[in-house]
Amino acid sequence: MTYGRGPNGERTESRGGGGLATALRGLVEQHDTTWIANAMTDEDRVVAGEEQRGTVLIEQEERQYELFYNVMANPTLWFAQHMLWNLAFTPDFDDEAWTAYASVNAKMARATVAELDRDPAAAVFFQDYHLYLAPTFVRRDRPDALMSHFVHVPWPETDAWSVLPEQQRRDVFAGLLANDVVGFHTDRWRRNFLRGCVDVLAARVDGEVVEHDGRRTRVTAHPIGIDTAEFDGLVDSEAVLDRERELVASRPELLVVRVDRTDPSKNIVRGFRAFGSMLERHPELRGRVRMLALLDPSRQDIPEYVDYLAAVEREADALGDAVDLRVGDDFARSVAAYKQFDVLLVNAVFDGLNLISKEAPYVNARDGVLVLSENAGSHAELGEWALTVNPFDVSGQADALYAALTMEPEEKRRRLEELRAHLRTHDVREWGELQMADLDGVRRR
Amino acid sequence: MTYGRGPNGERTESRGGGGLATALRGLVEQHDTTWIANAMTDEDRVVAGEEQRGTVLIEQEERQYELFYNVMANPTLWFAQHMLWNLAFTPDFDDEAWTAYASVNAKMARATVAELDRDPAAAVFFQDYHLYLAPTFVRRDRPDALMSHFVHVPWPETDAWSVLPEQQRRDVFAGLLANDVVGFHTDRWRRNFLRGCVDVLAARVDGEVVEHDGRRTRVTAHPIGIDTAEFDGLVDSEAVLDRERELVASRPELLVVRVDRTDPSKNIVRGFRAFGSMLERHPELRGRVRMLALLDPSRQDIPEYVDYLAAVEREADALGDAVDLRVGDDFARSVAAYKQFDVLLVNAVFDGLNLISKEAPYVNARDGVLVLSENAGSHAELGEWALTVNPFDVSGQADALYAALTMEPEEKRRRLEELRAHLRTHDVREWGELQMADLDGVRRR
Repeated sequence: MTYGRGPNGERTESRGGGGLATALRGLVEQHDTTWIANAMTDEDRVVAGEEQRGTVLIEQEERQYELFYNVMANPTLWFAQHMLWNLAFTPDFDDEAWTAYASVNAKMARATVAELDRDPAAAVFFQDYHLYLAPTFVRRDRPDALMSHFVHVPWPETDAWSVLPEQQRRDVFAGLLANDVVGFHTDRWRRNFLRGCVDVLAARVDGEVVEHDGRRTRVTAHPIGIDTAEFDGLVDSEAVLDRERELVASRPELLVVRVDRTDPSKNIVRGFRAFGSMLERHPELRGRVRMLALLDPSRQDIPEYVDYLAAVEREADALGDAVDLRVGDDFARSVAAYKQFDVLLVNAVFDGLNLISKEAPYVNARDGVLVLSENAGSHAELGEWALTVNPFDVSGQADALYAALTMEPEEKRRRLEELRAHLRTHDVREWGELQMADLDGVRRR
Repeated sequence: MTYGRGPNGERTESRGGGGLATALRGLVEQHDTTWIANAMTDEDRVVAGEEQRGTVLIEQEERQYELFYNVMANPTLWFAQHMLWNLAFTPDFDDEAWTAYASVNAKMARATVAELDRDPAAAVFFQDYHLYLAPTFVRRDRPDALMSHFVHVPWPETDAWSVLPEQQRRDVFAGLLANDVVGFHTDRWRRNFLRGCVDVLAARVDGEVVEHDGRRTRVTAHPIGIDTAEFDGLVDSEAVLDRERELVASRPELLVVRVDRTDPSKNIVRGFRAFGSMLERHPELRGRVRMLALLDPSRQDIPEYVDYLAAVEREADALGDAVDLRVGDDFARSVAAYKQFDVLLVNAVFDGLNLISKEAPYVNARDGVLVLSENAGSHAELGEWALTVNPFDVSGQADALYAALTMEPEEKRRRLEELRAHLRTHDVREWGELQMADLDGVRRR
């Protein structure tokens, strides 16, 4: 939740970007929860000074926050965990950013300890790569606190962690192991983490339990699901129907859709190349098919992201009319595109899970086909109903797009129905319950 | 060995670049060996048509060889194994290069089978990343041949192999497992390979033995050593003494030396930045210390290498007189610099072993200090006598250079003496013998 000011000076609340914020909001609404977060806007900082039931916003020193957020978390950790560094040249590591990261984590930890003073039986749920050090700080003060940490990004293998100097990568692993439970979206990231605990900390690993520093941490893999009720409601909402009418009025016979933040991990440039290559190989499809790319401009405070957006725009321009590129943030338009795709392209270089590969097929109205990167976390679940692509193999992606566009109707319907049945069973509630069950297991022990 | 023509039309033989060719030549001279290689020069092709005792040069079709050597082996496999791809943009995979790689490997395999027909009891030693598929082809024709493969480059973890489409990475692993023995320079690369056999092929791993496709392959780690006798002779050779006199006449009080091919894996740009940063922090050293970089221009048929050399030259220019950059191939000058360094910088991003980190300390005459990347294979052996650096941490490298330049004389002497004792015991002969012993073990089984 981010706070701002409306045109008449009234306070506004806006939904955080991406599916994760939605998923977490659902979880938070079902429990008596306090949400501890950094203040990001000016209005956030005003809210931080007030007493808010259920929300604690922490004011961080501006320069520290900048280094924490726009240097250390993004791009340093994000790029390391998605294997995006161009290692011959970058990163060029900066101790100052690490110190700021630790300091912001320490302040988050102090706020967490204060909440535990208010409610000593509360469980703490840390989210993601911004807070790897906070659990260590909380654990020092509250040895018996019940703590869980969910990592939403890929966990790379040990050698990829060598972009951090030794002490820092040890601190990252030790920070996560200060929790009782650490969760990942797929077994692949869990496996990498468990191996890393051995390689980096010489910890003892027994099945899914890591022993380190006299403590035991259970490492689990629970892919997040979608809030099916939310999407059931959204598909017929006025905003989405409006956007869908516009889309239907202008769409060609066949539509390849991608919906992404403009993040280098999303592999947008290679996606355009694959689409162009597919058209070259199958000129009979020219005019009958278009690629619609709805891209949310992401992290434009970071030079690598500015450069990437420029590369994306150049590549789209090169394809002319065949591509309809829309840069902006319009969730209703995204859902309309989810309904209208014939092929959804998710070709991420690496992706922790990729919620769009679940949201879009769930609401699709055209028996659309999912083309899915083998390096997206959701591939472990959805691969059998998708056409699998290697994200680096542009030629293979071109072939997959063609196969998807020309798949037999019954085959398309069968795949989509089975995929949807999976999404209904394995939804965001299940994800929440599995995490609660993990912690209950720890409590009993 | 590469053949050429001298000024009077006479045939010349030149030593292959790098320490590896020297090390292997030593091994070959001690045994009754046939050396099978691709013809690389016009004169090689002439030799290929003649009958040469001990050498079989194979002529490959030009376009195939170009794709094999300058696309698939370098940069595709080399960059993948050194984790140098800028994955948001490169590689952009090309099936044609893979087909050419397979075809060149198949031709090498046919020549190997022909040699086995001549001498059925011979053992086959495959070298490095150019020949991952050849063992599969030889094994098909000669199920009982005794085959060993040594990989001189790093073996990255499973996710890094995803730059190859699935079938291709399976072929790489299966190709190596067609051998009886697979060798690496360090336990780190061996560990990654063993894990990869499980991840990529679902092979069974029991200790250092992999079971796959009904066969057992032993995976060993033997770091290559240097030919100490060769270097004992070189240090007082006229050519080296000439070069050393020139160097001594122009050197300042303190000399930081690096000797490398201009390969992005060598991390030359960050090395200059670290040296510059060290001078900024310690201006009292300006004028007293210079960095001498002897760089062999490498693989200039490949765009990434042309760009990297340009980046290296820009970075050196920015440091002015503080850096003496020499681009060229002059082995006697390199050995002279080995003798004259006060600090040797080896800060490789990743390196299979790094022979220079052994050769240079072995002949050094000034109790010089080795600053060594934790990602160089030789670090597992030499780390305790070196100052360890993280290759991405420029600031840490600047600190290490300063610590090396100001180390106490006794401490420097002790480290260098212990390091040398290790090199004398663990020399290239030992490496050869350990490989022979591995194969003898297979033969007995």
